[in-house]
Amino acid sequence: MNIILFEPTEIGKPLPKRDARAVHLLKVLHKNTGDSFDAGVVGGSLGIGLIEAVRLDGVVFSLDVKKSPPPRLPICVSVGFPRPIQLRRLLRDLSNLGVEAIDLVGTDMGEKSYRDTKLLIDGRARAALVEGAIQARDTRLPLVSAYAALDDWLADRPWDRERDTLASASGRDRSFRISPILIATDNVRPEGSFGLLNTLGHPVVVAVGSERGWSDRERNELESAGFLRLAMGSRSLRTETACIAAVVLAMEKTGKLG
Amino acid sequence: MNIILFEPTEIGKPLPKRDARAVHLLKVLHKNTGDSFDAGVVGGSLGIGLIEAVRLDGVVFSLDVKKSPPPRLPICVSVGFPRPIQLRRLLRDLSNLGVEAIDLVGTDMGEKSYRDTKLLIDGRARAALVEGAIQARDTRLPLVSAYAALDDWLADRPWDRERDTLASASGRDRSFRISPILIATDNVRPEGSFGLLNTLGHPVVVAVGSERGWSDRERNELESAGFLRLAMGSRSLRTETACIAAVVLAMEKTGKLG
Repeated sequence: MNIILFEPTEIGKPLPKRDARAVHLLKVLHKNTGDSFDAGVVGGSLGIGLIEAVRLDGVVFSLDVKKSPPPRLPICVSVGFPRPIQLRRLLRDLSNLGVEAIDLVGTDMGEKSYRDTKLLIDGRARAALVEGAIQARDTRLPLVSAYAALDDWLADRPWDRERDTLASASGRDRSFRISPILIATDNVRPEGSFGLLNTLGHPVVVAVGSERGWSDRERNELESAGFLRLAMGSRSLRTETACIAAVVLAMEKTGKLG
Repeated sequence: MNIILFEPTEIGKPLPKRDARAVHLLKVLHKNTGDSFDAGVVGGSLGIGLIEAVRLDGVVFSLDVKKSPPPRLPICVSVGFPRPIQLRRLLRDLSNLGVEAIDLVGTDMGEKSYRDTKLLIDGRARAALVEGAIQARDTRLPLVSAYAALDDWLADRPWDRERDTLASASGRDRSFRISPILIATDNVRPEGSFGLLNTLGHPVVVAVGSERGWSDRERNELESAGFLRLAMGSRSLRTETACIAAVVLAMEKTGKLG
């Protein structure tokens, strides 16, 4: 754990000793009463935690958190619903990278049953997002949404609602309301290569299909909605790998690689 | 399975019905006697397999494999030994991406016990590489080597031995013997950003440290060996994510993104 994150509701209560964070503080970092540690509040700010006491009912701590979390990437990702076990890792990794939003979308070629996962409502998705944020020393989590079909996502255009935060993450004035570049990864029928794109200063919305790719019907829908179909090399990649690749390329193209 | 891969020793023998490939052919793809399927030989060529008979002792098949496998990337990756469970996924994903070589390297800040994994000798590493190749419809596997310490890897300079294949994968004449660009990812003390690099036509050797990064001693060793330390964004990434990111950026920079 690169930082100890607390939910807002956990502040002011002792952290139970069986909690993984308490175990990490006491057994891995060998911290004790009077020691401080890197801390943050989920959705809030960053700073220092102080162990006030280690009691039978848990670790009593105080927080001094005034620092802003790191900036988010002006990047939204949509992805065809993967297997639940892959979904957890995907959410963790995209949260680690710091994307603004993750939209899970049912696709024509995707396995329909994957959409029925309880993971998004039983706390496991949130736990995966928190794990990714901890790795990145971040407090903020990507916004996660689910859509039954690509058409629903394209009709909803969530990136229009997110335009203010995306513009701000791009380093642009919010009033500029710059349009995002809309990209769909497609190694089967691409219109060009992701390598040739230049999106400097623009936010990016990138749609990654399911492992079997897009149907031609979906290609038409994407095209009508203004999406460019771009290839990332010529090999068929696993969904998780394709998502990481797409985000890293979008980072490079938006000048957010540092 | 995007393709059914056979080891050279398996050709001419029936494929046992319990084998995952036989199950995939018969139960998932619903193939039967007389049906053909995409096939390849590990380390060899690609083409078509034909089911000659489905017998009690297994699936009898013949192969017509004359096509060359897809080109490999002119990219070698070295990475600090991750946890064994992460190592399997890492080998699979780097094989999926098609890198030339993967060197596992003990680092100052890495967990020493991770180097003792049996995974590299008990067949699990090879199985992970094959899984990645199947996803990419490839027959060739990256060369995997292990080094106890970064110093050993830098002293061995395996990229000099691999120079011919790297030059050829870069699309250069082997006689050209072009030097690879040597990069170490480093978000803590970078000399520049991966985003500003241009390696068009050059092979790339990229060294990713362990999750805790490089020691200053290792930074000096890398510098003496000619490695540039480059940042990939400002966030601390998981080892697997960092490796995928580094390879995808190297693909982009070498013009191998398609």
